[in-house]
Amino acid sequence: MSSLSIPPPACLLQPFPITQRLMLGPGPSNVPARISAAGAQPILGHLHTETIEIMNHIKSGIQYAFQTRNRVTLAVSGPGHAAMECAIFNLLEPGDSVLIAVNGIWGERAAEIAERIGAKVNTIVTSAGGYFKNEEIEKAVDKYRPMVFFLTHGESSTGVVHPIDGIGDICHKNNCLFLVDSVAALGGAPIYMDKQGIDIMYTGSQKVLNAPPGTAPISFSERACKKISNRKTKPISFFLDMSWLANYWGCDDKTVRAYHHTGPVSAFYSLRESLAILAETGLDNSWKQHKEVAEYFHKGLEEMGLKLFVQDKKLRLPTVTTIVAPPGYDWREITGYIMKTYNIEISGGLGLSAGVVLRVGLMGYNSSKTNVDKVLEALADALKHCHKSRV
Amino acid sequence: MSSLSIPPPACLLQPFPITQRLMLGPGPSNVPARISAAGAQPILGHLHTETIEIMNHIKSGIQYAFQTRNRVTLAVSGPGHAAMECAIFNLLEPGDSVLIAVNGIWGERAAEIAERIGAKVNTIVTSAGGYFKNEEIEKAVDKYRPMVFFLTHGESSTGVVHPIDGIGDICHKNNCLFLVDSVAALGGAPIYMDKQGIDIMYTGSQKVLNAPPGTAPISFSERACKKISNRKTKPISFFLDMSWLANYWGCDDKTVRAYHHTGPVSAFYSLRESLAILAETGLDNSWKQHKEVAEYFHKGLEEMGLKLFVQDKKLRLPTVTTIVAPPGYDWREITGYIMKTYNIEISGGLGLSAGVVLRVGLMGYNSSKTNVDKVLEALADALKHCHKSRV
Repeated sequence: MSSLSIPPPACLLQPFPITQRLMLGPGPSNVPARISAAGAQPILGHLHTETIEIMNHIKSGIQYAFQTRNRVTLAVSGPGHAAMECAIFNLLEPGDSVLIAVNGIWGERAAEIAERIGAKVNTIVTSAGGYFKNEEIEKAVDKYRPMVFFLTHGESSTGVVHPIDGIGDICHKNNCLFLVDSVAALGGAPIYMDKQGIDIMYTGSQKVLNAPPGTAPISFSERACKKISNRKTKPISFFLDMSWLANYWGCDDKTVRAYHHTGPVSAFYSLRESLAILAETGLDNSWKQHKEVAEYFHKGLEEMGLKLFVQDKKLRLPTVTTIVAPPGYDWREITGYIMKTYNIEISGGLGLSAGVVLRVGLMGYNSSKTNVDKVLEALADALKHCHKSRV
Repeated sequence: MSSLSIPPPACLLQPFPITQRLMLGPGPSNVPARISAAGAQPILGHLHTETIEIMNHIKSGIQYAFQTRNRVTLAVSGPGHAAMECAIFNLLEPGDSVLIAVNGIWGERAAEIAERIGAKVNTIVTSAGGYFKNEEIEKAVDKYRPMVFFLTHGESSTGVVHPIDGIGDICHKNNCLFLVDSVAALGGAPIYMDKQGIDIMYTGSQKVLNAPPGTAPISFSERACKKISNRKTKPISFFLDMSWLANYWGCDDKTVRAYHHTGPVSAFYSLRESLAILAETGLDNSWKQHKEVAEYFHKGLEEMGLKLFVQDKKLRLPTVTTIVAPPGYDWREITGYIMKTYNIEISGGLGLSAGVVLRVGLMGYNSSKTNVDKVLEALADALKHCHKSRV
């Protein structure tokens, strides 16, 4: 007789196949067959020679994508939030001061994470769709004297791509490190980590890179590494401790890589492939493509009578477009109709922009005029079929 | 002219195909085609209806594999170390007392993690290959009055499967939670979370479950949840905060799942498939298979004149076997020879057992007499061909 008191669950005793969906939300975006196939290759050990070679390729690919020569460049074994925690946990000790620019959900999250580890957190805040002028940033840095300044490059909740030029200088003049979240923009909007004086930057695998979610490229400047090596306390997380991670990724002076954690080997295969596609395409071509496709989309939206949430064209994020939620409609009905009728994901707002916008992502592989035509058609049809009140 | 100063890396401009290797180290183990294929299915959103259904299936599968009815049962979006941190970060507040049983590397790691968050850490320690009698545990619990007692079920560094019976009662009599690491044993050696009074347990995806590394099943008893809901401070990590994770996995009373982080959707597909295979096989059949195959292996080893590191048969971990490193040989030459000649991974020791043992994993799909025959042949050949000094 079986000693088991919990029987095998019936739901697992039948297959659950997944069908293709056009993923035009703020991510994950569709994974091209080439990347899925890479991820399905035979598993190797997390410290096998070939795996280490693949990790070295990933490092080079991230250095290219970030435009950096930083030695400490690697992928965190987790989603974007793990990379955000990795940056904050390693840079800040309890009592350290951090200034966080909040123009959407990512700044809010960064503040929450920094508060949990006992950092002194100050914020500057704009309304949804806003950004910070360099003068405002300089004033705040001067006032709060932070050790780290956090800024979101591509604020996917509001559709803003934040200007970066000059901010690195402001930070460095004030002995402050410049930390940039480029999860939603990297590969789709120009950014030059070294030239723009960014000290720490991270992104996610599942946006422009088109790999499955679960790994997060990150890079630390020499200046950032110095702050970390001068810490008086160990970072709060062993799993995200940069001295261990840097060793695992061969970014330190040691000749032997110690066992830290079991890296997600299959996810590394996918990430390598996605960086290979970016290297083949060319980063500048990718930026150009995202810009052109986004402008084509924006023109189509305006021709339909829809309004873009971000007024200033230069501030529009080329990867995720925010559209003013059409007056008189329930946005949920629109996204639901498009999902049901067209099997296309588009999404509503998030945080500050919840209920205010619709969001459409056109990232990497998905950034094409064909996809724009599809989503414009779906939107036009939804506006015809969904309930509209008089406004 | 391109604005890029870092060119595309040459290493990414050519393919890097991976060939099959027989993975008989302590993990990751080989991923069957059925699981790889599941992981390569089209990506969906981390909050899409089908994804939520898959997550529900995973929950049921973990409840089955753990033999628990715990409502708060889910998979962490990271490797086993993330699950270890998830358990410790959520259970302990700064100043809370924890008792850690160290009979290999996992206890050491747990102690390191608990120290980093400012817990009061006490340990009981055995030599490599040892275990703790219930009387010793009771004495230590009585002495240190911990809020949590940590024990490794399958200590893969020494090859010991730790007895579990009676320890839950000792803990509960003393108002202490029982936390078990079953990364290397779950599915391969009997354990009954509810019946044995385990309050928190976690495992990894890449051992007996044969999914790629990167997700980690975890479960919390009502008693553990109560400790968490009575916390005075927030857990140190937002990414691993159980109140957010429980909501994301539909384990709380809320009807809406909030956006917490982007779950590794593809890895969830693989994990679901691996739990489906376990449900089809039957947990008790899986335990039986691992036991039989391990005993067949151990017999073969002894017939070759090799010595098992763990003397007591009842304490031998059926998933990872430790063999006394053959006297007169350099263990590195043996593992290197077997890798090079047979394309089979076996490994050396780790932590306490480094230099002392060879380790062979036979987990899930890899637990078969055919694989035993292969590795025995490879070992016999290695002992013939590798250098031997007179001893």
